[in-house]
Amino acid sequence: MTESWQPTLYTCAGSRGLRATWAAAEAQVNLDLRMLPFPPRFQSPDYLDVNPLGTVPMLVDGDASMTESCAIAHYLAVKGGAVSLVIGPDEADYAEYLDFTYHADATITFPQTVFLRFAKFEKDKGFAEAGEAYAKWFGKRLIKVERRLEGREFLCGDRFTVADICVGYALYLARRIGLAEYLTPPLNAYLDRLTERDGFKAAIAMEGAEPSVI
Amino acid sequence: MTESWQPTLYTCAGSRGLRATWAAAEAQVNLDLRMLPFPPRFQSPDYLDVNPLGTVPMLVDGDASMTESCAIAHYLAVKGGAVSLVIGPDEADYAEYLDFTYHADATITFPQTVFLRFAKFEKDKGFAEAGEAYAKWFGKRLIKVERRLEGREFLCGDRFTVADICVGYALYLARRIGLAEYLTPPLNAYLDRLTERDGFKAAIAMEGAEPSVI
Repeated sequence: MTESWQPTLYTCAGSRGLRATWAAAEAQVNLDLRMLPFPPRFQSPDYLDVNPLGTVPMLVDGDASMTESCAIAHYLAVKGGAVSLVIGPDEADYAEYLDFTYHADATITFPQTVFLRFAKFEKDKGFAEAGEAYAKWFGKRLIKVERRLEGREFLCGDRFTVADICVGYALYLARRIGLAEYLTPPLNAYLDRLTERDGFKAAIAMEGAEPSVI
Repeated sequence: MTESWQPTLYTCAGSRGLRATWAAAEAQVNLDLRMLPFPPRFQSPDYLDVNPLGTVPMLVDGDASMTESCAIAHYLAVKGGAVSLVIGPDEADYAEYLDFTYHADATITFPQTVFLRFAKFEKDKGFAEAGEAYAKWFGKRLIKVERRLEGREFLCGDRFTVADICVGYALYLARRIGLAEYLTPPLNAYLDRLTERDGFKAAIAMEGAEPSVI
């Protein structure tokens, strides 16, 4: 990391982009932060010129751009030289570190967004039960994180890493959108440990506005 | 990689585990392959003792276990010493490599599984329209891959990498489940390039049975 390195992050408060601001805070990376109203594809149509997907977050670093929150969190830690936040190929728990950084969004965030769409945002369309089915699906998938945390404070490497940022955001989202019932006491205790960190609080403060829903 | 290294892969033919068998074939990693009937949580209930999620694929390597197909593909290439299949932090396109390996499952495979559930498997439950909504959602998200491929044969680093395996599987799935209409000619040409590879054909042959649906 150099003093002058300052990638640009487009995000909405409390969205999956929180993984990026949290990783930046933990890794002491200085972001050029561009907060957008939610949902940006309707509230900030010019944003489609920056990101044709219209999704947040988006990281722009020179010629490179990224739109996946877990990839961005890992990237900021690696490029920011925050060695302790990442687990490398020669360390124990490399397999689990990789696995949880992918699992966090593909398996335990996406189903929550299906629930949110059909059971909340579009609940008048008659698909609330379809949304609830994905809430249950989400709940069942938490067994992997729960088992992994038996006897552990953090997911990998006996320390706080980007894997905790990625998974922690998925649990934090559950608490905010009405899926807290699926968080067992050990998962709640883990999430409390994570949200009490200075890095998490700094990310929330950095984002400023009231969190939007996803 | 050592001659004796042989991680165990549990999978179903044609499932997301194809990312793992394909990566193993390309990286010349010797797998102890355990093919399961689909869906394993009903057809092979003992499998829940191995993987409490009941999902495939699952990779077991000594004490480590992984359940995310894109993480497994990357892991097999790294641990198998297949340097050309991976893009490292100091190479150009590292950001995009990471991003596409995450994007492939979280953004362009998951919505297809929502479509498959509500519009195909459970179409009598009255949520077919909810499933179709996710088919459209999937179609719109393909713009990122399509733009990236303008003037490129592969996604990253001017060569075939695990990013192509991860994204390629998502496109291959679309073709098989009735979403081919969303694949534009450049995406079809890209997918043809990928499925014509010896590594892809070796993976299909290794899996043996007729592909199941997801």
